Amino acid sequence: MSHCQPGQAPVQSQLGKNSAPGQSGPVVTAGVASSHIRAPGCPRARVITVSDRSFAGERGDRSGPLLANLLAELGYLVDGPVVVPDDVAAITAELYRSIESEYDLVFTTGGTGVAPRDVTPEATLAVVEREVPGIAELLRSSVAQRVPTSWLSRGIAGTAGHTLVVNLAGSTGAVRDGISALSPLLGHVISQLHGGDHHEA
Amino acid sequence: MSHCQPGQAPVQSQLGKNSAPGQSGPVVTAGVASSHIRAPGCPRARVITVSDRSFAGERGDRSGPLLANLLAELGYLVDGPVVVPDDVAAITAELYRSIESEYDLVFTTGGTGVAPRDVTPEATLAVVEREVPGIAELLRSSVAQRVPTSWLSRGIAGTAGHTLVVNLAGSTGAVRDGISALSPLLGHVISQLHGGDHHEA
Amino acid sequence: MSHCQPGQAPVQSQLGKNSAPGQSGPVVTAGVASSHIRAPGCPRARVITVSDRSFAGERGDRSGPLLANLLAELGYLVDGPVVVPDDVAAITAELYRSIESEYDLVFTTGGTGVAPRDVTPEATLAVVEREVPGIAELLRSSVAQRVPTSWLSRGIAGTAGHTLVVNLAGSTGAVRDGISALSPLLGHVISQLHGGDHHEA
Repeated sequence: MSHCQPGQAPVQSQLGKNSAPGQSGPVVTAGVASSHIRAPGCPRARVITVSDRSFAGERGDRSGPLLANLLAELGYLVDGPVVVPDDVAAITAELYRSIESEYDLVFTTGGTGVAPRDVTPEATLAVVEREVPGIAELLRSSVAQRVPTSWLSRGIAGTAGHTLVVNLAGSTGAVRDGISALSPLLGHVISQLHGGDHHEA
Repeated sequence: MSHCQPGQAPVQSQLGKNSAPGQSGPVVTAGVASSHIRAPGCPRARVITVSDRSFAGERGDRSGPLLANLLAELGYLVDGPVVVPDDVAAITAELYRSIESEYDLVFTTGGTGVAPRDVTPEATLAVVEREVPGIAELLRSSVAQRVPTSWLSRGIAGTAGHTLVVNLAGSTGAVRDGISALSPLLGHVISQLHGGDHHEA
Repeated sequence: MSHCQPGQAPVQSQLGKNSAPGQSGPVVTAGVASSHIRAPGCPRARVITVSDRSFAGERGDRSGPLLANLLAELGYLVDGPVVVPDDVAAITAELYRSIESEYDLVFTTGGTGVAPRDVTPEATLAVVEREVPGIAELLRSSVAQRVPTSWLSRGIAGTAGHTLVVNLAGSTGAVRDGISALSPLLGHVISQLHGGDHHEA
């Protein structure tokens, strides 16, 4: 999926109120090859779905496409969702690829809980340079208003180079409420990661 | 103390509204020896009170028995409270014993503050495999509504094998409000730690 | 700047309601040399402003003097603000000096965000012995009510010896709302760090 028109400066748009209700469904893109070319004015996001079941084709991926759609509505040029299994090496490899490709944002969905196979936070911790704990706190407390088990998400957020990596839990509710909570902050993060004006938070 | 009747599936019961007002006081059990036999349907919890003063007999333990009572009301088969001093080795030893005995839940009360002798979080960090930071965040913010100094609790929560370990602060208010905040989540954690359906938080 | 009169026991005073509106501006002190002499009853605080621009004289320091004023209003004997650049070694050196001088409180302002030069949390992590994560959580969630980007602050809080070190973000809003949120807790922390009565949080 890829939405943003070059020349737009869309990141500050409000989610929810402004979103078109008839928005078309997500489109799986041809891959990340084209994404090295940066469209001026269009921040780039990549979506990674972490799920053994979706990877094996046993269950359709609902949260990944929703996440891609919501980011496109916010004005991001979106690649993915790419589906990987609940495996540290597989997740880490996808994250490294995304950071090397200099995406502004990389969102994962799934694998943040306390089940034995949930390893997304561990894989993410291995690739980020600096954690941003407030993003994880905000996600848990915001999503928990409708999904109480959100408190059990071990998801982290952090930066690597110019990229912000954020773990969301693997439900559509967690994705919807999480992006809604983060949307006012993402433009500021991207600006700061590129040097910004150093009026730090 | 031990309450749950085999065959019950009690974990999802609501705390507070359903609790019997005439609930009898806590009973100190003979120890953990019998607790290796798992009653089907009854999740098992162990309570550890961390307090130099209570260990020395200088002050009665109020938060430990309250904690045991509240967990029994929620349907857990409860062992304890066991009282240990504010000593990393003593706390760690009790935690390891509890994890080896495959309790579903291990709750500590006390030793989470910033006084020099407060070392419960350090002892807990030494035994857990994965932290669950949202539980600690939820406890602090929930308890702080009536006990503002709850923000100073350094208590952590984490998993080791099939066991969830949670540090509560050492006051009856922290125990009461902490268990009230956690009660809707505990059944989900236990299910997840046993493999669950992997619909992670 | 230095305010507290020996013999006062002022830490529990409420911020805001009691603050004199005509409070005079901050005064840069001669340094920390005199601060080794502890005035009985007057807890001591030190303020460190972290900012490349203020250090280079390109921008006036507004948050540091505000912070010093607010702490003086709360009854602290305040040294600073001292201005240091966004440099790990420079910040660490100032923090060590403050801890060796046995200040009760050391507050930094600035350098907590995600810009490449923001390194205050890293410098602070290097000097504290024990983190107090609830203070950082409380600061983010409190300040975020008026300054949403507060969620991006990576600021930490922790103890070293008898000293509490707290990172605030580098805006006057973050300083004002942060001190307002922390003021009811600071007296308790200081008491605990000196052994207190060990009724831990």
